[in-house]
Amino acid sequence: MKLRIFVTLKNGVLDPQGKAIHKALESLGFTGVNDVRAGKLIELDVADDTSDASIDEMCRKLLANTVIENYRVERA
Amino acid sequence: MKLRIFVTLKNGVLDPQGKAIHKALESLGFTGVNDVRAGKLIELDVADDTSDASIDEMCRKLLANTVIENYRVERA
Repeated sequence: MKLRIFVTLKNGVLDPQGKAIHKALESLGFTGVNDVRAGKLIELDVADDTSDASIDEMCRKLLANTVIENYRVERA
Repeated sequence: MKLRIFVTLKNGVLDPQGKAIHKALESLGFTGVNDVRAGKLIELDVADDTSDASIDEMCRKLLANTVIENYRVERA
């Protein structure tokens, strides 16, 4: 079973990486960019019988820092 | 207009970050994980009149290294 986990910073958390990308896009001449947020995408290939609870636990224990990050799981 | 850009390593390109996550999941006791690939998720908020060509150019010039990475653009 293929999973895609999207890890994004919570609203209000400073995102220096996103800011750097934003600046770089502007310095390359791209106009009209209002905001950039950088996040992570983790693709997992897990056994078909892996439970939702187990996937959730992986996210909470390792893949996302739930103090500052949100995560979303998508089945591919 | 909100865009989500998914940047993933091409098949065959070594992914040490993914491997580290895989090992960490196993050492935490999660079984049944076959493969892990790490990628990037970049959320852009751009002007509504931004052309597809311009978005593509942003990806090719800055957001993805097309030698080793694929990218996919999704309109949110």
